[in-house]
Amino acid sequence: MVFLFNSDAERARIFAAEFARVLPDQRFVADRNAVAPEQVRYLLTWTAPADLERYPNLEVLFSIGAGIDQFGAGLPDHVKLVRMVEDGIIRMMQEYVTLAVLALHRDLPGYIEQQARGEWQARTVQQATARRIGVLGLGMLGTAVIDRLRAFSFPLAGWSRTAHDLPGVACYHGSAQLEDFLAQTDILICLLPLTPETQGFLNARLFSCLPVGASIVHAGRGPQLDQTALLEALASGHLAGAVIDVTDPEPLPSDHPLWRHPKVILTPHVASVTQPDTAAKAVIANIRRHEAGLDPIGLVDRNLGY
Amino acid sequence: MVFLFNSDAERARIFAAEFARVLPDQRFVADRNAVAPEQVRYLLTWTAPADLERYPNLEVLFSIGAGIDQFGAGLPDHVKLVRMVEDGIIRMMQEYVTLAVLALHRDLPGYIEQQARGEWQARTVQQATARRIGVLGLGMLGTAVIDRLRAFSFPLAGWSRTAHDLPGVACYHGSAQLEDFLAQTDILICLLPLTPETQGFLNARLFSCLPVGASIVHAGRGPQLDQTALLEALASGHLAGAVIDVTDPEPLPSDHPLWRHPKVILTPHVASVTQPDTAAKAVIANIRRHEAGLDPIGLVDRNLGY
Repeated sequence: MVFLFNSDAERARIFAAEFARVLPDQRFVADRNAVAPEQVRYLLTWTAPADLERYPNLEVLFSIGAGIDQFGAGLPDHVKLVRMVEDGIIRMMQEYVTLAVLALHRDLPGYIEQQARGEWQARTVQQATARRIGVLGLGMLGTAVIDRLRAFSFPLAGWSRTAHDLPGVACYHGSAQLEDFLAQTDILICLLPLTPETQGFLNARLFSCLPVGASIVHAGRGPQLDQTALLEALASGHLAGAVIDVTDPEPLPSDHPLWRHPKVILTPHVASVTQPDTAAKAVIANIRRHEAGLDPIGLVDRNLGY
Repeated sequence: MVFLFNSDAERARIFAAEFARVLPDQRFVADRNAVAPEQVRYLLTWTAPADLERYPNLEVLFSIGAGIDQFGAGLPDHVKLVRMVEDGIIRMMQEYVTLAVLALHRDLPGYIEQQARGEWQARTVQQATARRIGVLGLGMLGTAVIDRLRAFSFPLAGWSRTAHDLPGVACYHGSAQLEDFLAQTDILICLLPLTPETQGFLNARLFSCLPVGASIVHAGRGPQLDQTALLEALASGHLAGAVIDVTDPEPLPSDHPLWRHPKVILTPHVASVTQPDTAAKAVIANIRRHEAGLDPIGLVDRNLGY
């Protein structure tokens, strides 16, 4: 039975080497045309092939990324869908969100604008102890990001669908507590999974619940953000700034007004990228769990969609 | 005997309130014309008054900032010179340097340049475990910055004039070890005090000792950096980027080429600013130490100049 790898050649090389080293009995194939479909037991991919039904013996579909919203209908119920949980993804997201939060906290967009004009002028400072950070989504990435922000003395809060309990973090949950959470958040970080419920979540009504002068960091999924509402909230001054890594569509058309907005830092979906060396180890560990009858780490609840 | 406060009115208000609350017997004056010069025992200021000799009973001169290079000759030997050591300065420097390091590590200057062109293109990623950070200066600020960078998994090194021993940090010292330190530093952070020895320290020769593609974060003092040499090292590609908070002169003239350099993020000496509430507590604690016969925290060695 075969592990079929459907990604780029450089990643394939790193995965193949790790499989050969650690799991030599597992046949590893990176060319789908080089394997009989009924031989495929494991598939690692970013998007599901249109003809997924051609693999009748598929047991586990591994996403190469942390998100799995790209796997729509068509995946048989018995196939386990597993999102990527590996140190590289987590570390990169911690870096990106810390960078984004500090950039907004210290008004880097304002200084970049001044720099373009050659203007030497100190801008208003706020102490970290007075800058309230709120994280939407308290899963693997949300809690990892909070861990990295703790040391800076920001007051921390989090909101998620279901109740969580994190030391030193004011935890809110469910739609009934969302407005309370937002009213006390100066920098809002979105790390929610994309589901029907989170589509368009960051909209005009949500922004209006944030304090005047709040900022957002969006590292979830593009369709969660109403980009027009964001532009309006920035124009009115209700929001002071934004760091945006995901857009709808991607790539964002080069004439879109978010690109050249002076209060926006926009990056092309690079906050967190699966690192092949650590990912290969994580996938191999999950194959071992699966073969021992355990659930893989990162197994998706198909009803919740994450 | 009087504590004479020579800074702006808002800070004076916060200091006066803290003195009234905690040290009510100490007379606090914020207007030098409202006090007889021979009554002044303590002076807090950013620059020393030209007529410092008019205070014959001055015992301690407190700098309102972390640096004391602005106090040149003219300070009698018996006066204790004390730099500001307070939590607010330290926290702000930790924020600024972490922001700067992550911005260089994740190539924010490159993304900002792409953003201006509306270009959606992922740039090369390097893992934190392969990005070597080197800190010049292992005093209060250098060690505090290292503490904040530890969590990100960067390999850490430091260099200082005299030997230090910091857990998890490769420590180098003295001119004999400087080149070894530089050869293994991908992001160089300057937090040195300004002394005759560190004037022009960041020069073409030093840059040539760094690996190709290295970057610098300069949060020391403007005269430590040869700005022309930096521009040349960026132009040749030997250095990949820089985050600069201090320049020579300050303000930097608005037509200086550093302002609009695409590989440079330049801020107007705002990395760390004394916070009056925490600074007042620190100064009062030092007055108590002085009156108890102890050295104040932050006492400057007048021979070393820091």
